[in-house]
Amino acid sequence: MTPKGYAPANSFESPRFSGVRTFMRLPLVRDLEGVDVAFLGVPFDTGASFRVGARFGPEAVRSASHLLRPFNAGAGVDIFEHVSAVDAGDVSVVPGFIADSFTRIEADLRPVYAAGVVPLVMGGDHSIALPELRAAAATHGPLALVHFDSHSDTWDSYFGHPLNHGTPFRRAIEEGLIAPEKSIQLGIRGPLYAASDLDDARALGLTVLTTDDMREMGLREVIAQAQARVGATRAFVSFDIDFLDPAFAPGTGTPEVGGFTTWEAQQLLRGLAGIDVVGADMVEVLPAHDPAAITAFAGAAVLFELLTLVAIRRRDS
Amino acid sequence: MTPKGYAPANSFESPRFSGVRTFMRLPLVRDLEGVDVAFLGVPFDTGASFRVGARFGPEAVRSASHLLRPFNAGAGVDIFEHVSAVDAGDVSVVPGFIADSFTRIEADLRPVYAAGVVPLVMGGDHSIALPELRAAAATHGPLALVHFDSHSDTWDSYFGHPLNHGTPFRRAIEEGLIAPEKSIQLGIRGPLYAASDLDDARALGLTVLTTDDMREMGLREVIAQAQARVGATRAFVSFDIDFLDPAFAPGTGTPEVGGFTTWEAQQLLRGLAGIDVVGADMVEVLPAHDPAAITAFAGAAVLFELLTLVAIRRRDS
Amino acid sequence: MTPKGYAPANSFESPRFSGVRTFMRLPLVRDLEGVDVAFLGVPFDTGASFRVGARFGPEAVRSASHLLRPFNAGAGVDIFEHVSAVDAGDVSVVPGFIADSFTRIEADLRPVYAAGVVPLVMGGDHSIALPELRAAAATHGPLALVHFDSHSDTWDSYFGHPLNHGTPFRRAIEEGLIAPEKSIQLGIRGPLYAASDLDDARALGLTVLTTDDMREMGLREVIAQAQARVGATRAFVSFDIDFLDPAFAPGTGTPEVGGFTTWEAQQLLRGLAGIDVVGADMVEVLPAHDPAAITAFAGAAVLFELLTLVAIRRRDS
Amino acid sequence: MTPKGYAPANSFESPRFSGVRTFMRLPLVRDLEGVDVAFLGVPFDTGASFRVGARFGPEAVRSASHLLRPFNAGAGVDIFEHVSAVDAGDVSVVPGFIADSFTRIEADLRPVYAAGVVPLVMGGDHSIALPELRAAAATHGPLALVHFDSHSDTWDSYFGHPLNHGTPFRRAIEEGLIAPEKSIQLGIRGPLYAASDLDDARALGLTVLTTDDMREMGLREVIAQAQARVGATRAFVSFDIDFLDPAFAPGTGTPEVGGFTTWEAQQLLRGLAGIDVVGADMVEVLPAHDPAAITAFAGAAVLFELLTLVAIRRRDS
Amino acid sequence: MTPKGYAPANSFESPRFSGVRTFMRLPLVRDLEGVDVAFLGVPFDTGASFRVGARFGPEAVRSASHLLRPFNAGAGVDIFEHVSAVDAGDVSVVPGFIADSFTRIEADLRPVYAAGVVPLVMGGDHSIALPELRAAAATHGPLALVHFDSHSDTWDSYFGHPLNHGTPFRRAIEEGLIAPEKSIQLGIRGPLYAASDLDDARALGLTVLTTDDMREMGLREVIAQAQARVGATRAFVSFDIDFLDPAFAPGTGTPEVGGFTTWEAQQLLRGLAGIDVVGADMVEVLPAHDPAAITAFAGAAVLFELLTLVAIRRRDS
Amino acid sequence: MTPKGYAPANSFESPRFSGVRTFMRLPLVRDLEGVDVAFLGVPFDTGASFRVGARFGPEAVRSASHLLRPFNAGAGVDIFEHVSAVDAGDVSVVPGFIADSFTRIEADLRPVYAAGVVPLVMGGDHSIALPELRAAAATHGPLALVHFDSHSDTWDSYFGHPLNHGTPFRRAIEEGLIAPEKSIQLGIRGPLYAASDLDDARALGLTVLTTDDMREMGLREVIAQAQARVGATRAFVSFDIDFLDPAFAPGTGTPEVGGFTTWEAQQLLRGLAGIDVVGADMVEVLPAHDPAAITAFAGAAVLFELLTLVAIRRRDS
Repeated sequence: MTPKGYAPANSFESPRFSGVRTFMRLPLVRDLEGVDVAFLGVPFDTGASFRVGARFGPEAVRSASHLLRPFNAGAGVDIFEHVSAVDAGDVSVVPGFIADSFTRIEADLRPVYAAGVVPLVMGGDHSIALPELRAAAATHGPLALVHFDSHSDTWDSYFGHPLNHGTPFRRAIEEGLIAPEKSIQLGIRGPLYAASDLDDARALGLTVLTTDDMREMGLREVIAQAQARVGATRAFVSFDIDFLDPAFAPGTGTPEVGGFTTWEAQQLLRGLAGIDVVGADMVEVLPAHDPAAITAFAGAAVLFELLTLVAIRRRDS
Repeated sequence: MTPKGYAPANSFESPRFSGVRTFMRLPLVRDLEGVDVAFLGVPFDTGASFRVGARFGPEAVRSASHLLRPFNAGAGVDIFEHVSAVDAGDVSVVPGFIADSFTRIEADLRPVYAAGVVPLVMGGDHSIALPELRAAAATHGPLALVHFDSHSDTWDSYFGHPLNHGTPFRRAIEEGLIAPEKSIQLGIRGPLYAASDLDDARALGLTVLTTDDMREMGLREVIAQAQARVGATRAFVSFDIDFLDPAFAPGTGTPEVGGFTTWEAQQLLRGLAGIDVVGADMVEVLPAHDPAAITAFAGAAVLFELLTLVAIRRRDS
Repeated sequence: MTPKGYAPANSFESPRFSGVRTFMRLPLVRDLEGVDVAFLGVPFDTGASFRVGARFGPEAVRSASHLLRPFNAGAGVDIFEHVSAVDAGDVSVVPGFIADSFTRIEADLRPVYAAGVVPLVMGGDHSIALPELRAAAATHGPLALVHFDSHSDTWDSYFGHPLNHGTPFRRAIEEGLIAPEKSIQLGIRGPLYAASDLDDARALGLTVLTTDDMREMGLREVIAQAQARVGATRAFVSFDIDFLDPAFAPGTGTPEVGGFTTWEAQQLLRGLAGIDVVGADMVEVLPAHDPAAITAFAGAAVLFELLTLVAIRRRDS
Repeated sequence: MTPKGYAPANSFESPRFSGVRTFMRLPLVRDLEGVDVAFLGVPFDTGASFRVGARFGPEAVRSASHLLRPFNAGAGVDIFEHVSAVDAGDVSVVPGFIADSFTRIEADLRPVYAAGVVPLVMGGDHSIALPELRAAAATHGPLALVHFDSHSDTWDSYFGHPLNHGTPFRRAIEEGLIAPEKSIQLGIRGPLYAASDLDDARALGLTVLTTDDMREMGLREVIAQAQARVGATRAFVSFDIDFLDPAFAPGTGTPEVGGFTTWEAQQLLRGLAGIDVVGADMVEVLPAHDPAAITAFAGAAVLFELLTLVAIRRRDS
Repeated sequence: MTPKGYAPANSFESPRFSGVRTFMRLPLVRDLEGVDVAFLGVPFDTGASFRVGARFGPEAVRSASHLLRPFNAGAGVDIFEHVSAVDAGDVSVVPGFIADSFTRIEADLRPVYAAGVVPLVMGGDHSIALPELRAAAATHGPLALVHFDSHSDTWDSYFGHPLNHGTPFRRAIEEGLIAPEKSIQLGIRGPLYAASDLDDARALGLTVLTTDDMREMGLREVIAQAQARVGATRAFVSFDIDFLDPAFAPGTGTPEVGGFTTWEAQQLLRGLAGIDVVGADMVEVLPAHDPAAITAFAGAAVLFELLTLVAIRRRDS
Repeated sequence: MTPKGYAPANSFESPRFSGVRTFMRLPLVRDLEGVDVAFLGVPFDTGASFRVGARFGPEAVRSASHLLRPFNAGAGVDIFEHVSAVDAGDVSVVPGFIADSFTRIEADLRPVYAAGVVPLVMGGDHSIALPELRAAAATHGPLALVHFDSHSDTWDSYFGHPLNHGTPFRRAIEEGLIAPEKSIQLGIRGPLYAASDLDDARALGLTVLTTDDMREMGLREVIAQAQARVGATRAFVSFDIDFLDPAFAPGTGTPEVGGFTTWEAQQLLRGLAGIDVVGADMVEVLPAHDPAAITAFAGAAVLFELLTLVAIRRRDS
């Protein structure tokens, strides 16, 4: 590997369990000069409706990511030949205050997007997708959304409040941040409040593939639909770790049985190669419910595939 | 949803993590007037042969069930339009005394069955299936058994004692509570004491499908065989959580590797639609060995499918 | 024991590990007719500044409390001869929204106080003390506060926001809910932001005894000071579980080493006998960080002593 | 050290974390020829009234004991100069059946006592003290009991059954196995069912020192009373690990806050030097509730002091 | 079952949770007279590059193995009719010193191989494969290797040192202990340091099937290739538990998402029937990261299949 | 606070749970210009003789330290008015190789000492004290040692090897790095291999106060002896977290019951005020055995007191 710019510490020189924990042992750099991809933590969980604690998600994912190596063998990509990446620390949040936090998150992310850097965000609960999308759309306009999740997160409100981790994508569509006709939700499953829940998501213009739909059609067809849907539109990928089955990701806020394996998730993410990912997140890792840290390892692996997608795009364009 | 009778608390009014833990946030009601389905805990584990602690199973399953919502999207059923359900608390048990406990469990369940209410039982170790079946058969006569488990539980005795969690179904057949020719065991696997163990179960008249058999034939064929076997006979479904692989259900008494996923379990249970389930249980959840609570979530999901089966039957008859 | 009114289930008739979890196996009753003491959960943690998850505190404390028996041997009181007590469930909260939740908590508690019932609250993070005190003062006027905590919780604000779990007692004094000259803080310790932190608490009129002060003077002298301070004023006791050392209460939001044992806490609480406790809480139990549940057991034990204080007062007046 | 007979493996030759787990790395020997002390597991927990799982106590204690070294520095005794000790494995039990198990436990222990070997038993729940005492008294006649516990374990029955872990010492007194006037209970505390509970224990002839009594009088006076009480009578020491505070022993069946430290327990046990210990047990370690294994380490340390008492007696007589 | 020689304790006579923990409740025997298979612990983890603690692997696997029964139903083999097996304890190691430990491990294993006994080793980190292969090859000459692992373990060195758990198979090939053309690696996956990593393994002569290769071709084809590769050559099977997905084996040193289920592993191992296994190991179980013990259960299950392979070979030859 | 130089991030501006984890939220700085104190991780555990995993100690302690605030209220010191402190990351180690690692650790620490910076080291196992002392003595000459530990760590060798975590202080004395007549060991307790173990430590010239000695004489007298012993000699403080009782520090390699509380440790450390601490460490935190993280919190608190000692010295000289 001849790194293009910023790259991970060399694990043949210092062991992977050493050093202050940054994502993938990347340098901790705030100045985005010469940076293609910036990993950023958003330690916010005030939007959570059940289990809470995703504010410690970035810490756990950074820790688990120390096992990652620079060559994605499944995709055949030597990542840092194509991208320069850093850990840019955490954005500002105010625990206990959603609207105020959203303002700060958006404010911190806007210059990242404006600089043409791809932020890969470690959540945090899923409510943060809204300020992320606000920042992204300010630079890129309405985005194609590829959304992995067991929940549609398009409810209207909880207890009279429109902002929490069950509503970001409805808000984003209402605000014109997402192009729903270019967007797709993958993995929806589990009990709903009413038959209308999925209809509502579809009425917003989203394509919704449930877990049962996906098992019926097979991974290749799912990939084909996602690619067709997104096309050349600039895309945001949002990956709620509860897309995975609780056996693979127990440490999450609203675990939903009957989900996917990490191998399936890897195949699907690799299937997105070629899409123009301008921003992405991986959310809802709750370390306090992750005694063996496998959720954190899964979350790090998802981010690794997202990073690879950016590298492939840079390599090929 | 226009609930038919008793239904869960509204999670848009009070958060799902609030309130005294009843199954699915249903009202705690002992009087069975106007009730179709009663969830009941049987906190008994004196019949356990290895790990022990299923007496805390009902508590854990009630807690996990707070995440459940009323519409079963996989089955397309708005449950409480068709059934009125309550949590009726726990039945009486005497820790340390199997025979005495069985007397009390049966005594508490008999009036439930007699009232035409379907009890959905949260165990407890699997030995409780015997007093459950005694109570059920008193009202309904010999039942078709659909038994999900990695173990056949038809051993004759342990240490000279005929009652424990390895023997209930042999006892039930001997007592005429089960119609073996209408019954089926699904998921049997793992090392045995001798080649004769499965032969014994079959000699009792049971159809036994091992995990390997089921993987060979596929889920659809398994469902077809179960439906054919049971037919119109009134049925009891007994689901030992160790039917699932330990990755999906680590918190159980005698974990057996090489098992099923929760998604597979959901498909199989949904495949039983139409069967006349008059009683059912989900047993062997041990919270002390379930650090991320995924076994409890799986157990709650199984009970949710069992409840759905009752709702479908009521809807369609 | 001849119970005066509502009393726990008899543990010689049904085992303590059975039944839906209410505090101390008390009946779940919403109607406060004939009730002296109501245990109430406040599953709110949006005010937390570090670890979060106290929304599950009431559940864990109810579970641990099933071990409690009705006679307080240390205090020599047969509790339910003197008080009728119930578990009245949880009050309303809106996760993610502090001000809205405070309105609801106060609204739910006002009628309890107005009815002359003593609410014993299971938190929740410590921010809830503010709406509790608002409700209490509406009936009782400014209260003497006996505050067990490692932190003074009299900071002015965090991130520009005046409401969270570090500020309730400053707010309460500003609002005239507490009579600071009748009030005492016990157990303060740990690093501060600045030398002025404790001065600020004292400038508000509070007596502040640090852990070092208390170890220097001995428990008897501490009790004498607290009794002298409070005198005949109606009192509110607020017990943050982090008063205890993390060895005794690991499952809390901001653990502070160098603290007290549960035996010391019991002695101090028993030393308050005679004080007119009109309301109290025990807060900051975080089950997700309490792997052996000892924090929950400690929290239940604190509530048991608070209940005993009420029983003693009723017995003696 | 010149060992007298059987002694632990040499930890300078093979690391302490190696080898099949026997107590203190002693040889696994069933033939008691040349043996002074036999460690024996009694993996029985059917007598448990709340949390259960002490059947895995012997395994955990054996594992923790691998850290022990042969010289008791606190007592100044090179243990294996004076005693030959082995791990004799586990006695027979029948899970789920108390009376049958008691018959087997007694039958297995009788020849040990008859051979003049001191059995040091790893429980198991506390109900096993009854068959232990039956076996001990058959050889030694009525014994002085030194009983460390937070509970008196002298209730009459639970749910109509006289045998469980809350009743062994009442039964033992009724059967004449214990000389109550030579016996003492140490550490009793916690809520009771009624004021009469302790009176009942005292009415049986036992001296009962509560935790509060002990803190009031100091450890030296407690030791003096215990020594005076026992005198030259052959003694059985029964140590329920819940004598310790849950901070020091979380992994137990009925944890009781407000207890003792391990240092205090060590002082008390060393204070028994000179007493003629003919048998002893350490019970109620539940590994499934002991995530950091400190309860197992505490249990091993208690057994180490018990072994030292035997060594001192052999050295000095 | 009429056992041929040494066989497990009878679990109808004493419960499976009782007794000093040996593998599968086999007798602890050091003298290999009359022994076909010897289970041996190698509690060594100084070769670990990330998480560490496999020195406690043998203890955990022995504990979990108590659930195993003697008849392998999946393979249809009554094991102890064909083999006499014992637990021979642990071999010598020196924590902190790799070269010295390798000398001792080899020295302890050489007489086992020389006696014609098949050692089934419980690791320990994977570095121990090197001294194992040195001992094996001394008796059997260059061996066919069937290697299950997510990592190739054929790196050249770390930090200038050639011996650790990432290098054993390169060393073994260099030393002529393995016949690479008869050998196969299964399950390789995850990020690499460079594209050349797998090429290097292949350049050594090994056949390398990645996880993706295997999912593409199906289990039957994988088995066929492994059988074809090994043929009649004496074989050593080395099973790194991280071959399994972290959902199935969280407690390991370098978990790698996207892996296999235990059911798939069982099928693959059973597919090796007929191969002449002269030695094998199962390594990298780390109990401190295995809170529900499912990794230990999986490890025990792997060893059970390895034992079955030996039994089949003895039965059929 | 007007910080003198480098100081922690302001927790009123960004929450304490945010940001890449450095000790106490200090800046991550490698260049020691303008630095008084450098926190450094030494993630090394190859010297461990029992439980292993201290390589992850620095990570856990950094995480826990985020709760610390800048003013030491117990000591009355506003730390960063007097010292400029940074987190300088981790030193180089080679897992699996003690001698090589010692060379690297010493090489990394020598320039720190030479620059007059006080390194406060987060271990790692206790073997690292030797290269630390080598580096320290190179600048400062033979040092007074204040050693908190339950073990004397002055054994000669294990398995023929002189370097591991049981031997560093014997080696250091042999090499003339420590002035034994100026040095003191505090807290020694627990079983020994032989009566001679403590005699050996004393024969090396060390003053050894056992836990029993210390409880007998009281903390004030202990402090007086330590102060008298050290006097004006430049000092190194080495704090093995197992000085604390396992209730307060379960996550350690060789837990020893009967130890000290964190409050006692704080008093002792504060009693060292005035001593010229030129370097110090806190070692043996093992996160994998620390489920509630209280050991990490205790370790961070110890380092906070060590930092305070440096600040006091700078303030007063």
